[in-house]
Amino acid sequence: MVNVQVYVTLKEGVLDPQGSTIENALQTMGYHEVASVQTGKYIELEIEEGNDLEARIEEMCEKLLSNPVIEDYTYTIGKGVS
Amino acid sequence: MVNVQVYVTLKEGVLDPQGSTIENALQTMGYHEVASVQTGKYIELEIEEGNDLEARIEEMCEKLLSNPVIEDYTYTIGKGVS
Repeated sequence: MVNVQVYVTLKEGVLDPQGSTIENALQTMGYHEVASVQTGKYIELEIEEGNDLEARIEEMCEKLLSNPVIEDYTYTIGKGVS
Repeated sequence: MVNVQVYVTLKEGVLDPQGSTIENALQTMGYHEVASVQTGKYIELEIEEGNDLEARIEEMCEKLLSNPVIEDYTYTIGKGVS
């Protein structure tokens, strides 16, 4: 079993109203040092090791986990952040 | 300016219907190697450097970015994943 972390973020230029809302809220709460906020998705997968692991992860990202029209993805294998 | 990456995940035992849905969809699409899926949030902040950077990030996470009753957070400073 390998642990795979997928990070999905909005492409440059795509509006991020959730990020703007968080940014405004942090400013209102007194965190004036916050200059910008971008939101995204974090997805952790447990996958049985096999052939073509990276190719299959990329396929999953493109077909289901992200929307390639407006989102970018990156992934790391084997070292969880949590 | 430092770049801060915050990862918010559900605590152990908290139901993750979005994760289950993705897992079922991947199985249906033929990715039988996927054993489990957990979803979370990924938030990227640009912050002006100052005193107590880590303490202030933790405060933001606890007060706004995560719900400490059902969610855990981790963060990394200075190295973006995207």
